[in-house]
Amino acid sequence: MTSKGGLTRQERDSIGMLDVPQDAVSGIQTQRAVLLYPLAGAGRFSDYPALLTAMLHVKKAAARVNIETGAIDPAMGEAIIAAADDLLARPRPGAFPVHAFHGGGGISFNMNLNEVLANLANKAGFGAEYGSYAPIHPNDHANLNHSTADCLSTGCHIAALTAFAGLAAEVEGLAGDLDRLGQDWAPLRKLARTCLQDAVDIGFQDYLGGVSASLRFNLERAARDADALRQVSIGGNIIGRSEDCEPAFFARIIPVLNEQLAAAGLPAGLGRTANLFAASQAHDPLLALGASLEQLARMLIRFAKDLRLMASGPHGGLGEIRLPAVQPGSSAIPGKVNPTVPEFMVQCGMIACGRAHAMAMTQDHGEMDYNPWEAVVITSLLEMIATLESGVATLRRNCVQGMRPDAARNQDNATSLLPSLIRLKQLKGYSHASAVAKEAAGDVEIVRRRVAEAEAGRN
Amino acid sequence: MTSKGGLTRQERDSIGMLDVPQDAVSGIQTQRAVLLYPLAGAGRFSDYPALLTAMLHVKKAAARVNIETGAIDPAMGEAIIAAADDLLARPRPGAFPVHAFHGGGGISFNMNLNEVLANLANKAGFGAEYGSYAPIHPNDHANLNHSTADCLSTGCHIAALTAFAGLAAEVEGLAGDLDRLGQDWAPLRKLARTCLQDAVDIGFQDYLGGVSASLRFNLERAARDADALRQVSIGGNIIGRSEDCEPAFFARIIPVLNEQLAAAGLPAGLGRTANLFAASQAHDPLLALGASLEQLARMLIRFAKDLRLMASGPHGGLGEIRLPAVQPGSSAIPGKVNPTVPEFMVQCGMIACGRAHAMAMTQDHGEMDYNPWEAVVITSLLEMIATLESGVATLRRNCVQGMRPDAARNQDNATSLLPSLIRLKQLKGYSHASAVAKEAAGDVEIVRRRVAEAEAGRN
Amino acid sequence: MTSKGGLTRQERDSIGMLDVPQDAVSGIQTQRAVLLYPLAGAGRFSDYPALLTAMLHVKKAAARVNIETGAIDPAMGEAIIAAADDLLARPRPGAFPVHAFHGGGGISFNMNLNEVLANLANKAGFGAEYGSYAPIHPNDHANLNHSTADCLSTGCHIAALTAFAGLAAEVEGLAGDLDRLGQDWAPLRKLARTCLQDAVDIGFQDYLGGVSASLRFNLERAARDADALRQVSIGGNIIGRSEDCEPAFFARIIPVLNEQLAAAGLPAGLGRTANLFAASQAHDPLLALGASLEQLARMLIRFAKDLRLMASGPHGGLGEIRLPAVQPGSSAIPGKVNPTVPEFMVQCGMIACGRAHAMAMTQDHGEMDYNPWEAVVITSLLEMIATLESGVATLRRNCVQGMRPDAARNQDNATSLLPSLIRLKQLKGYSHASAVAKEAAGDVEIVRRRVAEAEAGRN
Amino acid sequence: MTSKGGLTRQERDSIGMLDVPQDAVSGIQTQRAVLLYPLAGAGRFSDYPALLTAMLHVKKAAARVNIETGAIDPAMGEAIIAAADDLLARPRPGAFPVHAFHGGGGISFNMNLNEVLANLANKAGFGAEYGSYAPIHPNDHANLNHSTADCLSTGCHIAALTAFAGLAAEVEGLAGDLDRLGQDWAPLRKLARTCLQDAVDIGFQDYLGGVSASLRFNLERAARDADALRQVSIGGNIIGRSEDCEPAFFARIIPVLNEQLAAAGLPAGLGRTANLFAASQAHDPLLALGASLEQLARMLIRFAKDLRLMASGPHGGLGEIRLPAVQPGSSAIPGKVNPTVPEFMVQCGMIACGRAHAMAMTQDHGEMDYNPWEAVVITSLLEMIATLESGVATLRRNCVQGMRPDAARNQDNATSLLPSLIRLKQLKGYSHASAVAKEAAGDVEIVRRRVAEAEAGRN
Repeated sequence: MTSKGGLTRQERDSIGMLDVPQDAVSGIQTQRAVLLYPLAGAGRFSDYPALLTAMLHVKKAAARVNIETGAIDPAMGEAIIAAADDLLARPRPGAFPVHAFHGGGGISFNMNLNEVLANLANKAGFGAEYGSYAPIHPNDHANLNHSTADCLSTGCHIAALTAFAGLAAEVEGLAGDLDRLGQDWAPLRKLARTCLQDAVDIGFQDYLGGVSASLRFNLERAARDADALRQVSIGGNIIGRSEDCEPAFFARIIPVLNEQLAAAGLPAGLGRTANLFAASQAHDPLLALGASLEQLARMLIRFAKDLRLMASGPHGGLGEIRLPAVQPGSSAIPGKVNPTVPEFMVQCGMIACGRAHAMAMTQDHGEMDYNPWEAVVITSLLEMIATLESGVATLRRNCVQGMRPDAARNQDNATSLLPSLIRLKQLKGYSHASAVAKEAAGDVEIVRRRVAEAEAGRN
Repeated sequence: MTSKGGLTRQERDSIGMLDVPQDAVSGIQTQRAVLLYPLAGAGRFSDYPALLTAMLHVKKAAARVNIETGAIDPAMGEAIIAAADDLLARPRPGAFPVHAFHGGGGISFNMNLNEVLANLANKAGFGAEYGSYAPIHPNDHANLNHSTADCLSTGCHIAALTAFAGLAAEVEGLAGDLDRLGQDWAPLRKLARTCLQDAVDIGFQDYLGGVSASLRFNLERAARDADALRQVSIGGNIIGRSEDCEPAFFARIIPVLNEQLAAAGLPAGLGRTANLFAASQAHDPLLALGASLEQLARMLIRFAKDLRLMASGPHGGLGEIRLPAVQPGSSAIPGKVNPTVPEFMVQCGMIACGRAHAMAMTQDHGEMDYNPWEAVVITSLLEMIATLESGVATLRRNCVQGMRPDAARNQDNATSLLPSLIRLKQLKGYSHASAVAKEAAGDVEIVRRRVAEAEAGRN
Repeated sequence: MTSKGGLTRQERDSIGMLDVPQDAVSGIQTQRAVLLYPLAGAGRFSDYPALLTAMLHVKKAAARVNIETGAIDPAMGEAIIAAADDLLARPRPGAFPVHAFHGGGGISFNMNLNEVLANLANKAGFGAEYGSYAPIHPNDHANLNHSTADCLSTGCHIAALTAFAGLAAEVEGLAGDLDRLGQDWAPLRKLARTCLQDAVDIGFQDYLGGVSASLRFNLERAARDADALRQVSIGGNIIGRSEDCEPAFFARIIPVLNEQLAAAGLPAGLGRTANLFAASQAHDPLLALGASLEQLARMLIRFAKDLRLMASGPHGGLGEIRLPAVQPGSSAIPGKVNPTVPEFMVQCGMIACGRAHAMAMTQDHGEMDYNPWEAVVITSLLEMIATLESGVATLRRNCVQGMRPDAARNQDNATSLLPSLIRLKQLKGYSHASAVAKEAAGDVEIVRRRVAEAEAGRN
Repeated sequence: MTSKGGLTRQERDSIGMLDVPQDAVSGIQTQRAVLLYPLAGAGRFSDYPALLTAMLHVKKAAARVNIETGAIDPAMGEAIIAAADDLLARPRPGAFPVHAFHGGGGISFNMNLNEVLANLANKAGFGAEYGSYAPIHPNDHANLNHSTADCLSTGCHIAALTAFAGLAAEVEGLAGDLDRLGQDWAPLRKLARTCLQDAVDIGFQDYLGGVSASLRFNLERAARDADALRQVSIGGNIIGRSEDCEPAFFARIIPVLNEQLAAAGLPAGLGRTANLFAASQAHDPLLALGASLEQLARMLIRFAKDLRLMASGPHGGLGEIRLPAVQPGSSAIPGKVNPTVPEFMVQCGMIACGRAHAMAMTQDHGEMDYNPWEAVVITSLLEMIATLESGVATLRRNCVQGMRPDAARNQDNATSLLPSLIRLKQLKGYSHASAVAKEAAGDVEIVRRRVAEAEAGRN
């Protein structure tokens, strides 16, 4: 992080002195983190706006409660609130340059927030220069009555809830698309296979309804896990101890935060987690959501591959459906069109599974009172959600909603030898069907005729 | 599978003729599977007795319903029921030799069951020889009104529910053990760390209560997934089609099965899954339980490693607790004792995670109407459950229940420099604590004295 | 482990007294392990005969060197050697009942070996009763100059090398089968697809040769990893210290072991690993082989799924090849045949991937001087190898060697519209092909005619 | 992608007409991809500059060969070369906006390149407007004699080789740092533990040398895999067919590319892969490198966690080493310093493992002639490499190079009870050591005295 003109100011922390770009709205601890942690493998925390927004709300609610309880001078508290509101209204990505990973615990990120809030509040509220940290101090005031762990964990829960809502809407939308297609295509039968071998005929609606039910099963399970994120640990400052904040703060922070979130249209209805020490030892609820989403991701991979397989051809494939042609499918073969949109979904699903894998590793690497890997957890989870959402969104709009069945091919398949014999067995019994099979000797037309006769006779 | 005397009988199926050991209670399709699939990487289906038991109950209930609805001659139906009862009462592992994996779909296993039931029923009920398949035929009677897919899937759900109950009891027991230890050790403070660096003091009960809460979080989530297994697909014969069985069978099979399971003390209360096609396309509910158990496994690895770390020493470690000495800890160093019981738990947890990984792979490899990898799913799930249960059981009885804190070490740690300064900050404020820190210049005794004074002054 | 008559003898170790079945050839430490670690999730160490054999050779070589260097009384040393030879010639699974997992480090297994060797040697060589441990003591003599860590690690390397040879032969055999099929089917063209959409025609031999090359790529990589296992750590007794054994032992143990292994037809040519401390800190070479085999497993899954896809049908699939019909494919649909043998391969591959996952977890859970999870590593690796070998073996003999192409279907596909146009483009240029495409308006016969004319014109 | 002034031009491809921003240097197929694939879960292809550079070199070499063989008009070929040189010298990220994932095969990326090269070449060489595609056409000239598959695969190999070199240098540097520290700390003994229980003393150099050897083992293995990437598939245009490009192009493209890469200081020495069909069916060599790097990542996690554990304290931990204090370790506890730099390494390692997991999934999801998931493979691999490199770089410079041992603590640990008794056993035998142990009754000073006497007596 360098200043435009190269000018710097000096700041001091418990480690020592350091130059900070003169115009930086953040301070020394932010600068240390920027210098220590190269940008690779993940973005800056500012690249996770849902998280930044959630954290600003926590900081703002803390300031509000601190004013209420008399823990902070009202003018100072209001200046912090105004600074938070300013950042919520006009995001300044450049103010939050620390790498999303910066050692366990997220201290640099919390301090980045504290420094920015203090600097903005001091300047706007008191005309003080950046770096003065007076009257408002990053630790003493912007961080008052909470600590990195409880503030970050609470922010992560809110951010995950926010992000999940978008994904859930798309997945629900996809299930709805499939239900609608199912109704539109209702009269159409198709061949169903086991082990990729022809088996029986089903309605196309049956296939689509099965996928839709499976999507909803996985979505509902994830939604239950998301809902559990409403239990937060704010107030369990260090390692879950509630005694590190004032009792009045402990009592009021969640109600005030809920009001604020509700007013902002963000997920509210938060409560305090049953065991604050457990919340420090492990990130169970975030991990649970990630694991559920991995299952959803694998389900989406399967469905996207189904679409590719059913659309395979045009000559040498199954050819049961036609996907919208969205782009030329070869730089060398004219006229080829590929199922690139389902393939994008598959790619998104694979990336999501990789993210879930990294998340899962964090759990068994926790130690005793504290699991320091929350940055891996939350960035992986937010990436997963964004990836899956973008996959589902384009799959719906650029593929599923415009796909069409090949009626003739499905009709032909659905009345091919094996399904026809099974139909005959249903209508006239096993021995009759066997006798027809023998007589037909592989000629499907004979069997089809007998099925038609049997169906006519039935009516 | 070879006969004792080497004598054989000949049987025929749609593939052709094959020699079967003369005294085999199973038949040709079983023999084909035995010859095709070498025994490695998993056991025989008879090595999964919970699954075998569950399947026998499904077969028995099917026979009962078929009698009720008139689909089978009562004498034949009762003979099948008697054969199933005989196998439930006196398991015959040798009768079920097919490899747990034998190609997609589990047909060999279902046919193994059908052949054994038919042979036993024909012999006991009608004096017919093994291999006669008259009057009772494996396909026409033992498999009447159901097929491999719905019967196996239903059996897998029941088996997983049965097995899960045992694991749940041990995990709940472990949480209870920790709660009890927490009460016993309640007065004791300990050092808590973040990022393995000394932070503050907490009660030992706080740590143990956190672990217990985390165990219960994961257990309750898994229990919810287990509960979803009560929705079964019996009646959705092929690819979820209900039209392949008689309506009366479809209506009665689940109630009759529930009665039977309840009478046998097995998990009952089954209902029919909302979408039978989805149940054929994917094994979502089984996978969900597996994924939840992976999270539990990782949590148990973490806790078992906590125990090792807190018990590390005797000289060069944390030395906060002492684990029961259960076996000599070295073949070369006399007097060494290792935390082998927690290590067994870690090993079980790792194996369980590997099983979960194999399970998860099955999902994205499903295709369209049918996921043929249920054998990988159910064997992995049952292995996972058994492994975790044995790890938790021995962890409780041979380690947790007998472990003891080192009171002096914890007392010393809990009042070391950093925790003492933080205590002072709580009692007298930040600036007072800072002044004392300066004055003490690292001498913990000075700080401890000031804490004692401040605490005395408070009372 | 209970005695037949329920009779016991008492033994003592550093933990205290314990009853041991009177007729047990193992002793107290074995009995402790049996009582501590329930059998689930893995077998007994005796279920891994390659490992037991390897360890017996290490013990035997150690005794031989100890005689050579005068460290042990020759009569006692020879008695140990005779006991080892006896166990190598006549395996006694019942003598090795400890669970494959029994806490970190494998001490119980090593002590099980030491106790059995001491008891057998004392009885056969000196007429002493089991449990007397005189003149030969399990620790002082059977374990002389080595310890659990170096002995077990060396045994694991030898066992993995032995097992890998069998798998390698099958994989090489499969590649050879494909090469032979490629030659047999050489004239046949087939449709090749990208993204499952028709692209161009290739020779069937091209496809098969690609698979064979990919198999060999993965096999050669695994073989290089296997070869690295020839570097062993025997002599680095505790944590890699060479000073815990006598210099003469250190110098001679590997040459003597090599002679012995070569004489037994086992993998020899061992050398000492470059850094003994590294060998204690991590199981890098075993993990490397496991990771390479995971890649092979995934490749085999892909190929087995290719076979299923190319054999899909008979009516509604690709229908390019026919796999041998090995068993009836449905308990409900007569005449259906499923690709169960490739499916068995897929199942074996998935299980192997799960094993690899468990192995990989052990690495990041090592701590400082010692990685205690070798039991997870070696059992997972041996299971993986056995599983893959059985999958490939049956895939070769029951599927690949008997599969046949559908000549007409492939011919038709290979000359369908897109491949024909591309052929025409090759022969007569892009604009000519485009003009023909326009003229043909989807009628493949017109295009085929023009291709034939162009090919005729070329000759 | 929108034009600054909102002005557009119309372009046409085989799908139809589309508006493209008037000033866009890319064209219609790029625009389609931008509209189809939302940006989430990965960046644009321009975010992978090593890949872009590699691809530009392939395009440039192709143009050079096409001039040589007379396949393209020299003026047009030189204009393409000039455009490529321009992009190599002055990267234009905005010109390459397609999402790194855009459906299987990477066609949009290749077409993005072709369109940009054509537009730049037409404008600079012939004064033609963007979108004119005359005289130079994206497909007919910029893509001449190659296709997406072989060009992208070759580019991926070169990019991975380039990126790996940077990581390898850092890992080799870390091993060197450890060797140097080992020499500096050579006289110092430390306590070594098995299963976290005190065992014996070793040199600090022994520990560090073990880590360094393990790093090099994993690095050399990865380097071997990287080296295999020098075999490339350019010329195997579609599905590995060499007949889709002119024989002269096939013969010359690799030598010309090698010259060009060598001149640019990039990895050269490329050869053609042994089986071009295998290169289309699977991305074996890229996957192999990814898998090796996962093992390296797990090793680095282990080592970083070792550092944290050895530095734990200051009071309640092992306290064997002190890491440089790089930033304040708490927003609430003054004076606390955390091992954040090793924790960053752990986080990078976990993210890398997640990437490896996504890569591995691509393999078993390939189908027959073509694996369409190369975008997941290459982006995951490049992210992995960058992440690991940044982790190792900061670990070296901000932690390892500045860490110091606590001499007194190590000395005390190394001569504590168990190590001292073992030392005595070495010097005076087992029974003498046992007697001293009994006499000392836990008083380490007595044992230390006896060790000193024994050592004195020895000299």
